[in-house]
Amino acid sequence: MNVGVLVSGSGTNLQSLIDRARRGELGPARIAVVGSNVPDCAALARARAAGLPTFVVDHRDYSARAGFDRALMTGLRAHQTDLVVLAGFMRVLGEEMLGSFPGRIINIHPALLPAFAGVRAQRQAYEAGVKVSGCTVHYVDGGVDTGPIIAQAAVLVHEEDDEETLRARILAEEHRLLPAVVRAIAERRVVIEDRKVRILGLSPSGESLRSL
Amino acid sequence: MNVGVLVSGSGTNLQSLIDRARRGELGPARIAVVGSNVPDCAALARARAAGLPTFVVDHRDYSARAGFDRALMTGLRAHQTDLVVLAGFMRVLGEEMLGSFPGRIINIHPALLPAFAGVRAQRQAYEAGVKVSGCTVHYVDGGVDTGPIIAQAAVLVHEEDDEETLRARILAEEHRLLPAVVRAIAERRVVIEDRKVRILGLSPSGESLRSL
Repeated sequence: MNVGVLVSGSGTNLQSLIDRARRGELGPARIAVVGSNVPDCAALARARAAGLPTFVVDHRDYSARAGFDRALMTGLRAHQTDLVVLAGFMRVLGEEMLGSFPGRIINIHPALLPAFAGVRAQRQAYEAGVKVSGCTVHYVDGGVDTGPIIAQAAVLVHEEDDEETLRARILAEEHRLLPAVVRAIAERRVVIEDRKVRILGLSPSGESLRSL
Repeated sequence: MNVGVLVSGSGTNLQSLIDRARRGELGPARIAVVGSNVPDCAALARARAAGLPTFVVDHRDYSARAGFDRALMTGLRAHQTDLVVLAGFMRVLGEEMLGSFPGRIINIHPALLPAFAGVRAQRQAYEAGVKVSGCTVHYVDGGVDTGPIIAQAAVLVHEEDDEETLRARILAEEHRLLPAVVRAIAERRVVIEDRKVRILGLSPSGESLRSL
């Protein structure tokens, strides 16, 4: 299964995927291409350092989303992308892109959705004073962080936390959860029924992927 | 510290408080009185079986919330209540009651607030397909499940769960979390600053009360 990873920032989730792939831990998934809307982001440097093909579609070059989307699709299709992974990709995708990869775009979000959707989720959680937060891998639909939830991991908020320490603790779980989901999808163990996602072949306890 | 517990249903959270009190695990807190708006609920039977004073304020006898609230306040004050614990109490409290026990009313909610506020939280979570849910103890303010969060416990949703098995797993955490918070409040280890709650004297890791 060819995975196209879209990035905008530092690329630590991309790095986690690269590292797992090198250790043979992504199952039948391979990273086929890395695309970004930010020409000089650190994530692209990570991709190049790993010898991965990259492409850039700078959103500032497009006046309408449809054109931006089509350029992304071209970059992904050039490498026979089967699964699109948004790993810190900070642009909302349009209908054309969603329709082009139906049920094959996933995103990692740094909160326990449906709580704290949108940007700065860690700050939202910190300022809300929650004692438990976490991260979510979900299918992407037309809304902002509203698609079917595939897997989640909980993270305890510590009394001495500030926004940054909470962000770091959540990020460590992201690095674990996203590759596990990519592998499960590549192994065709993820099924969706009526917006509810089931992962087949988990441990007898039936716990979901967050316990991997 | 005299605790007044308000109940409407089966009273398993009340029973957990009763059991902990008997084992000397509520610290300086004692259950002073149990009040209910449902005359024949099982929770009242549990209270009587434990030899606790009880009172009933049937909301159907009151045309306005203020009168209902005042009757509750009378029942609680008759036993010198310092802290009001809503343990499955299914009525929203009015301003008079909130003003009468400022910062001294807490509630247990079967979800990780701010997600799934309101009634049937477990069903909301189950139908949303989340992989992590839990419970929350929070201070009560004028909104529905919107007050400052004191403690939370996470619960994993299992692949084979239905609404009832999820409800039971969350309930087991409620039974642990609520007495721990009552004890911490009675020991004056719970402080609130700018709607954010801190619990003093926790383990060096600084994790919040859910790890007790």
